[in-house]
Amino acid sequence: MPDHVYKIIEIVGSSTVSTDDAIRTAIVKAGTTLRHMNWFEVTETRGHIVDGQVAHFQVKLKVGFRIED
Amino acid sequence: MPDHVYKIIEIVGSSTVSTDDAIRTAIVKAGTTLRHMNWFEVTETRGHIVDGQVAHFQVKLKVGFRIED
Amino acid sequence: MPDHVYKIIEIVGSSTVSTDDAIRTAIVKAGTTLRHMNWFEVTETRGHIVDGQVAHFQVKLKVGFRIED
Amino acid sequence: MPDHVYKIIEIVGSSTVSTDDAIRTAIVKAGTTLRHMNWFEVTETRGHIVDGQVAHFQVKLKVGFRIED
Amino acid sequence: MPDHVYKIIEIVGSSTVSTDDAIRTAIVKAGTTLRHMNWFEVTETRGHIVDGQVAHFQVKLKVGFRIED
Amino acid sequence: MPDHVYKIIEIVGSSTVSTDDAIRTAIVKAGTTLRHMNWFEVTETRGHIVDGQVAHFQVKLKVGFRIED
Amino acid sequence: MPDHVYKIIEIVGSSTVSTDDAIRTAIVKAGTTLRHMNWFEVTETRGHIVDGQVAHFQVKLKVGFRIED
Amino acid sequence: MPDHVYKIIEIVGSSTVSTDDAIRTAIVKAGTTLRHMNWFEVTETRGHIVDGQVAHFQVKLKVGFRIED
Amino acid sequence: MPDHVYKIIEIVGSSTVSTDDAIRTAIVKAGTTLRHMNWFEVTETRGHIVDGQVAHFQVKLKVGFRIED
Amino acid sequence: MPDHVYKIIEIVGSSTVSTDDAIRTAIVKAGTTLRHMNWFEVTETRGHIVDGQVAHFQVKLKVGFRIED
Amino acid sequence: MPDHVYKIIEIVGSSTVSTDDAIRTAIVKAGTTLRHMNWFEVTETRGHIVDGQVAHFQVKLKVGFRIED
Amino acid sequence: MPDHVYKIIEIVGSSTVSTDDAIRTAIVKAGTTLRHMNWFEVTETRGHIVDGQVAHFQVKLKVGFRIED
Repeated sequence: MPDHVYKIIEIVGSSTVSTDDAIRTAIVKAGTTLRHMNWFEVTETRGHIVDGQVAHFQVKLKVGFRIED
Repeated sequence: MPDHVYKIIEIVGSSTVSTDDAIRTAIVKAGTTLRHMNWFEVTETRGHIVDGQVAHFQVKLKVGFRIED
Repeated sequence: MPDHVYKIIEIVGSSTVSTDDAIRTAIVKAGTTLRHMNWFEVTETRGHIVDGQVAHFQVKLKVGFRIED
Repeated sequence: MPDHVYKIIEIVGSSTVSTDDAIRTAIVKAGTTLRHMNWFEVTETRGHIVDGQVAHFQVKLKVGFRIED
Repeated sequence: MPDHVYKIIEIVGSSTVSTDDAIRTAIVKAGTTLRHMNWFEVTETRGHIVDGQVAHFQVKLKVGFRIED
Repeated sequence: MPDHVYKIIEIVGSSTVSTDDAIRTAIVKAGTTLRHMNWFEVTETRGHIVDGQVAHFQVKLKVGFRIED
Repeated sequence: MPDHVYKIIEIVGSSTVSTDDAIRTAIVKAGTTLRHMNWFEVTETRGHIVDGQVAHFQVKLKVGFRIED
Repeated sequence: MPDHVYKIIEIVGSSTVSTDDAIRTAIVKAGTTLRHMNWFEVTETRGHIVDGQVAHFQVKLKVGFRIED
Repeated sequence: MPDHVYKIIEIVGSSTVSTDDAIRTAIVKAGTTLRHMNWFEVTETRGHIVDGQVAHFQVKLKVGFRIED
Repeated sequence: MPDHVYKIIEIVGSSTVSTDDAIRTAIVKAGTTLRHMNWFEVTETRGHIVDGQVAHFQVKLKVGFRIED
Repeated sequence: MPDHVYKIIEIVGSSTVSTDDAIRTAIVKAGTTLRHMNWFEVTETRGHIVDGQVAHFQVKLKVGFRIED
Repeated sequence: MPDHVYKIIEIVGSSTVSTDDAIRTAIVKAGTTLRHMNWFEVTETRGHIVDGQVAHFQVKLKVGFRIED
């Protein structure tokens, strides 16, 4: 760890199923273009309401990944 | 959207099942007196402990709804 | 309640299953040495990523318990 | 508790006597139109100064009350 | 002032013109159902982007009004 | 001071009388098991409402005490 | 008001009696060198502990005063 | 929306004209390299002063855009 | 810059015209007694409402200026 | 990591030498009674001034340690 | 400055030597792929503990750089 | 302490050497016009980057000093 530098990006995932699923969706999507993802932090949980019901959850995340040497 | 004004209220839902269920419970209850609910934001997640176990989750939400013209 | 004093500690639980499970895990563990636990508040939700997937969720909690007379 | 949904409103009370009195004043006034008030949280303490003396204290509160079934 | 209790609500106004106009729009709309509005505080400024341009500004406000005796 | 290390704990006191009394109650209680308490900081002021009146105030405090050499 | 500009300073008052008294003490002291003080906001409440008792309360305030034309 | 993942970047725009113009300048510039920009949030408003006058406004924004599938 | 020390003061300007104008008004007023003002940061935007309309905007600013050698 | 639960404590270290040294001092002292310390986070940096010079730095830390099974 | 738009990224550097060195390490690393870096802001200071000693410091930074025309 | 009132000012020091040196520089400079300085709190750490290297650190401080009787 002392030898590494990390970059942090912020992303938003969504899911009709659950807040945890919104997290997983965002991470998997980010992984299609990023390598060496290491940790995430939730910075906001929200969602949309349609016809008086939760239509989907949205979770905002910071994701840290190691910058390659 | 540019033509609308929204009002935001703050509510607390609870559930013995899950945090997501506490969110859904609060939204459904709010919907019995509010129309045009549009989005929510979680502002606090907490709960009560009974006999060393999570007895129920409580989630505090802000809910935005369109003011009717 | 007016007659009691409470102490608050901060703990972190983790789970490969869900954020709610990380909460429950932390509370059960804390209960092995604490009695009279009364409420919890989530102060941070994060986790580790391995091979582009959520490896486990980590939830930081404040837990309040009554100080015995 | 698990069966209830709460609503939270924000009010400001004032008093020439004390900050605690400003809290009590606000709660009593809110109670003339609300039932089932359950808890409050102080979110801001301020006041006005006249002729170099505290003229009155103002305390901003969030008040939670149970939504009737 | 020492004799009054105020209530605070949260609203969101929007405008294609400016952030100040979004504030004014929200206040005027709120005034169609509220009397004795006294002050506002901006809590969030955001907006939507369409085709790479600001489509409209959205401003979230807290509005304080005196509860009638 | 330069030679000391302090530990900080978080406690909640309550009182039917006043917020200041809730602070004093919490400190006295903490003192039954802690020595060398040095300072406190208020982190939250809240309370319960019964029958439309403040039933008791609750004040959350951080308390710093010197770790004995 | 639209014609005035205000300056805000930050001060700390203390009292062995109460938090409200610490506020009043700070304001009166500030008034010996400032005119046109208009409002205050509490930004921190803390205190020192001696022999397991609250020795004195300290309250940090922002104080706004009108700049003379 | 449930099917999309968004990325959020942070930018600073400036303008000698107005804070709204600083927002628009930043968004237009960001649009030269980003597609699918969807919303922005203001996180800081500041500026420089030259010869006792506002020389230009600077507005810090978070901008969300949809990650292409 | 490395050789300078700056002081920061907090002021409030107001305007019936716009939030930007409230900023400019405060800076110009501060400049009648301060030299070497260098930057400002907006810390609060609020205003008063009269007869259901925005009567004037108030903007709270921190202003940094170089301390003369 | 998924199998562990961590506890977090808050401590204050001080040093006449540097802020980093205040951190190291606090950690070493905490280690005389705690095992399995894993990480720290700085939550406040302050200090005392004597005769117009920094007399010592004080750093407030949260320290996380694994609860033994 | 009025003609420029800046982008802000978030990075984490670490060092076994000091917090300042962790800042410098992160900036130098970021400079291998970024030009026109202009300023940084520390957003978090933390570190890991091994065998009861600070093993390395980690500093989270926001770094602003000018977007080329 | 119970008999004193303190004033708090905010200053920014800078140094090409270290963050601690930036603190010391600011305090010494402030001491040329202030007596009875008692404590400081760091509120922001930032700096400028030139040619991909930290050119100087800037530290924002609040400094408390006793108001003379």
